[in-house]
Amino acid sequence: MTAARFQVVFHIRSDAAQIEARARSIAVEQSVEMPVAAIDDEAILRDIVGRVDGIADLGGGVFEVRIGLAVATVEADAGQLLNMAFGNTSLHEDVVLRDIVLPEAMEAAFGGPGHGLEGLRRRLGAHDRALTCSALKPQGLSADRLAGIAERFTRGGIDFIKDDHGIADQHYSPFAARVAAIAAAVRRATAETGHGTRYLPSLAGNLEQMHLQVRTAREEGLDTVMLAPMIAGVATLQALVRAWPEVAFFAHPTLGGAARIAPDLLIGKLFRLFGADAVIFPNFGGRFGYTPEQCRSLARHATGANPRLRGAVPVPAGGMTTARVPEILEFYGTDVMLLLGGSLLETRERLTEATAAFTDAVARHGKGSAHG
Amino acid sequence: MTAARFQVVFHIRSDAAQIEARARSIAVEQSVEMPVAAIDDEAILRDIVGRVDGIADLGGGVFEVRIGLAVATVEADAGQLLNMAFGNTSLHEDVVLRDIVLPEAMEAAFGGPGHGLEGLRRRLGAHDRALTCSALKPQGLSADRLAGIAERFTRGGIDFIKDDHGIADQHYSPFAARVAAIAAAVRRATAETGHGTRYLPSLAGNLEQMHLQVRTAREEGLDTVMLAPMIAGVATLQALVRAWPEVAFFAHPTLGGAARIAPDLLIGKLFRLFGADAVIFPNFGGRFGYTPEQCRSLARHATGANPRLRGAVPVPAGGMTTARVPEILEFYGTDVMLLLGGSLLETRERLTEATAAFTDAVARHGKGSAHG
Repeated sequence: MTAARFQVVFHIRSDAAQIEARARSIAVEQSVEMPVAAIDDEAILRDIVGRVDGIADLGGGVFEVRIGLAVATVEADAGQLLNMAFGNTSLHEDVVLRDIVLPEAMEAAFGGPGHGLEGLRRRLGAHDRALTCSALKPQGLSADRLAGIAERFTRGGIDFIKDDHGIADQHYSPFAARVAAIAAAVRRATAETGHGTRYLPSLAGNLEQMHLQVRTAREEGLDTVMLAPMIAGVATLQALVRAWPEVAFFAHPTLGGAARIAPDLLIGKLFRLFGADAVIFPNFGGRFGYTPEQCRSLARHATGANPRLRGAVPVPAGGMTTARVPEILEFYGTDVMLLLGGSLLETRERLTEATAAFTDAVARHGKGSAHG
Repeated sequence: MTAARFQVVFHIRSDAAQIEARARSIAVEQSVEMPVAAIDDEAILRDIVGRVDGIADLGGGVFEVRIGLAVATVEADAGQLLNMAFGNTSLHEDVVLRDIVLPEAMEAAFGGPGHGLEGLRRRLGAHDRALTCSALKPQGLSADRLAGIAERFTRGGIDFIKDDHGIADQHYSPFAARVAAIAAAVRRATAETGHGTRYLPSLAGNLEQMHLQVRTAREEGLDTVMLAPMIAGVATLQALVRAWPEVAFFAHPTLGGAARIAPDLLIGKLFRLFGADAVIFPNFGGRFGYTPEQCRSLARHATGANPRLRGAVPVPAGGMTTARVPEILEFYGTDVMLLLGGSLLETRERLTEATAAFTDAVARHGKGSAHG
């Protein structure tokens, strides 16, 4: 019997003469990280040392290399998965981590989102349309000013309102005071609209601070939060997801470093695997350089059918406008949440109306109504 | 009075006609992340919105851009520093985070290493030579086998013995059993050698798990541990450093992604700032692609005189040999710790002697003795 392995896929710039030796050296680096000739334990040579499962020439001096690594080195620790898959090899500039393929039992052990797309839809009662989201900005506003913006977003019928990911626990809007003020504003407005708009505060600091922040959020009646897994550490996301099963988690891509870990893998597949219910990413055609193909693949990774993992909500964001809603929904379909921030906020005193126009555009899409 | 700022330095591939607009857009992205025209609060426009402090043409289509960001957005939260300095901008492939320059008060608030180079020297009684380190490998060995290796390293006179960074809490060598076995082996051997060899276990998982692991290490009489800040999250490093003032922390560079955050900044400067006492990095001429200039700059960042921060120990590693000791010490001087792993382990039954040859080479360097 051989030990279970998961497979890591790299894209490597190399010449053809070097690629086999390079693949073998990465297989060693990402497993035992020492000269194989110096290992005398048969079980380690058989079960632990990385194995080159395949090399394919992709053309243009790039090769795809598949390495099989022992499940036993990772079990179900999110940080350790990234460590064994890409740790030291991330220090080579000519290697991109393209994919990680887990056996079913390992995927089930991670467990993925606690709520996911369907859970968020149920909370909002929004089953047949895309979800909507906006962001509280700018950094530097007081809790009361942010609450005023949140109230207008809510009156405009938005589904989710997130803190700007730069808003943490600063003196100009401390976490506890901010969350209390904004949660109260959203409660007031939802009492009138009847729509279950959710405010999700951005968690900051370390795991212990984040536990306290989630507790504060729960005391204010909130059931959704956001954090940045690449800053907090993926093990922090995993720990929070397990500790707070009633809370839904949005993952923010900040510090995601587009070039070296393929974004569909990191944001679509791994953040879902580690338990994010919704994954925010830079949409094509906005401020960032992702291609439509990368965005489509990311969304498919987030939502693809999987008997072991709930689907996560793909949340394209970054420089989008209400005018682009039809185009974006044609592209992604309705299993998506649209996030508009700056383009709503720049309407200033017309913020409620601009938000309503955005949420209407999403609700009307594909209905073929007279409003369309 | 204007609010205090820290400065972030980017290297950006751009054409000359675009660079001013690009610099302004990054200044906005890394501060308020919304259209500046939509901000009506004078204090935010004056104190919070990012400011372009300088643009220099480095030639070859690369520009250096300096952005001033508000200290108030970060205060002394390690994760938030990376978030504000490089968060969303890391998603652009054409930008490298080259440096972060902090005002003195902000640097003092972070605080840096609790022990640093001088503290580690005092513990080992090694004041006038480079420090030495090796690594327990391979992944997959039982606790007893690892303890046997540690005992031989200790008999060879090594200063520090670290877990391979891939060794976590796996079933084949669970953390508590492994640490107990190895600590006991090192105690036995140091009782004979009289040298204060330190074993440093590698922490894994989330902050709560790491607290328990440090407690286990303390119960075994250990005072040094290692963790990987880019996997655990830099806020996790910061929290541990503050919670365990008597413990020294080694930072491992795994998942450090060489290309997008300059290694001298990330490993030499920031890991020190956040409290690492020793920072491991891939030496030039080994398995990784760092240049001698990058390594020299990294070491200078780690050790450079600073009235607010203790110096951290630079620990070059990765494919080095005892034969290279004189060359490496000529390069770094003696404010350094040399880490040899595989090249010692491949001597197998001669491990104690090979370790002794390594530690002798370090001790003899520059003494001009008959042994040299």
